[in-house]
Amino acid sequence: MTTLYYAPHTCALATHIVLEEVGAAYDTVRIDFSRNQQQSPEFLAINPKGRVPALVTGRGVLTETPAMLAFVAQSYPAAGLAPFDDPFAFGEVQAFNSYLCSTLHIAHAHRMRGPRWVDAGDSVAIEAMKRHVPVSVGAAFDLVEREMLRGPWVMGERYTICDPYLFTLAQWHAADGVDPARIPGVIAHSRRVAERAAVQRALAQELAPEQSRA
Amino acid sequence: MTTLYYAPHTCALATHIVLEEVGAAYDTVRIDFSRNQQQSPEFLAINPKGRVPALVTGRGVLTETPAMLAFVAQSYPAAGLAPFDDPFAFGEVQAFNSYLCSTLHIAHAHRMRGPRWVDAGDSVAIEAMKRHVPVSVGAAFDLVEREMLRGPWVMGERYTICDPYLFTLAQWHAADGVDPARIPGVIAHSRRVAERAAVQRALAQELAPEQSRA
Repeated sequence: MTTLYYAPHTCALATHIVLEEVGAAYDTVRIDFSRNQQQSPEFLAINPKGRVPALVTGRGVLTETPAMLAFVAQSYPAAGLAPFDDPFAFGEVQAFNSYLCSTLHIAHAHRMRGPRWVDAGDSVAIEAMKRHVPVSVGAAFDLVEREMLRGPWVMGERYTICDPYLFTLAQWHAADGVDPARIPGVIAHSRRVAERAAVQRALAQELAPEQSRA
Repeated sequence: MTTLYYAPHTCALATHIVLEEVGAAYDTVRIDFSRNQQQSPEFLAINPKGRVPALVTGRGVLTETPAMLAFVAQSYPAAGLAPFDDPFAFGEVQAFNSYLCSTLHIAHAHRMRGPRWVDAGDSVAIEAMKRHVPVSVGAAFDLVEREMLRGPWVMGERYTICDPYLFTLAQWHAADGVDPARIPGVIAHSRRVAERAAVQRALAQELAPEQSRA
């Protein structure tokens, strides 16, 4: 059995959606950030990074959203969510997801996770980072809007593992201080993704009141 | 023809090494950071992100090291640098490279590229970030040392696209303030990678006095 460890309102949603898209048999475990459960010994034994998402498979544990998305897609090739038979096209998918992971998500993380990059007691520097989030996240979304998002899906006519990942991170644009009027293509894309049954199922499951069993 | 746009002492080295490992026919163009050439209109037309590396192929441009490494490896399957036929094993490779890209490299970047995440004029916050680099980069290397690096290569017996990438980022550990005594496995790994002919060729080419033609 495959088990997704997640927390609501995190990037784990992207993998959750893709598990739904491919029709995988899987289970979920909600990690309670309010109790700092991601740092519990039990969870650290699963993912020593102390973060979600983590995907427990029969072969072992996978982390890192770009890797998890590609793994699920490649495990269910009939769903056609990534062009594994075309190294360049697959490279484009991976490049897009890597940009979301290492630039857009990282810029966003400076609003809530400042102590990753400065001393936890340095509230002045932490506030300086927070203030810059609309600029840095905005610039990353601008690049997605202007240079990357082909439409109707990220890679053009074909829905891929890029789409639920962009949808997931785009949910945070308003809280990050990015004016939606600046990124109409991204907003329209999110609306298209939200219409998919798999997305609605994953969201309903994550936002349901009680699921924790960890 | 494939062309790698790079600058010395950047993560572009990882892709450069892999191009050498697979015996690819390729050309290189050195981008002069001292003249801010990565922000020139000519280079922005190639890579709107204004960063290296970028790989220009007959099909288009690829960026993002994890994607570029997988692309080169998949384009030259005989070199056996990634287990594409095994979704879980390939997922582990991608997860490792994604961690280097989005955690280890990002932590490192807070030493030199602070204005990505705070106002460029905020020298106090920029200094606060710099001071934290030994902690954040050190923690990332600790995790690699303790949980990820199997030995002799990152994935165990098989040399993969994880190895030149770790080698490339590990070159920066001293400048990032990480005591090598803390990460003996990473240091021994770097020594093994440095012995490879492909690595020596890529390094010699990057560090040669004159190559710029852009």
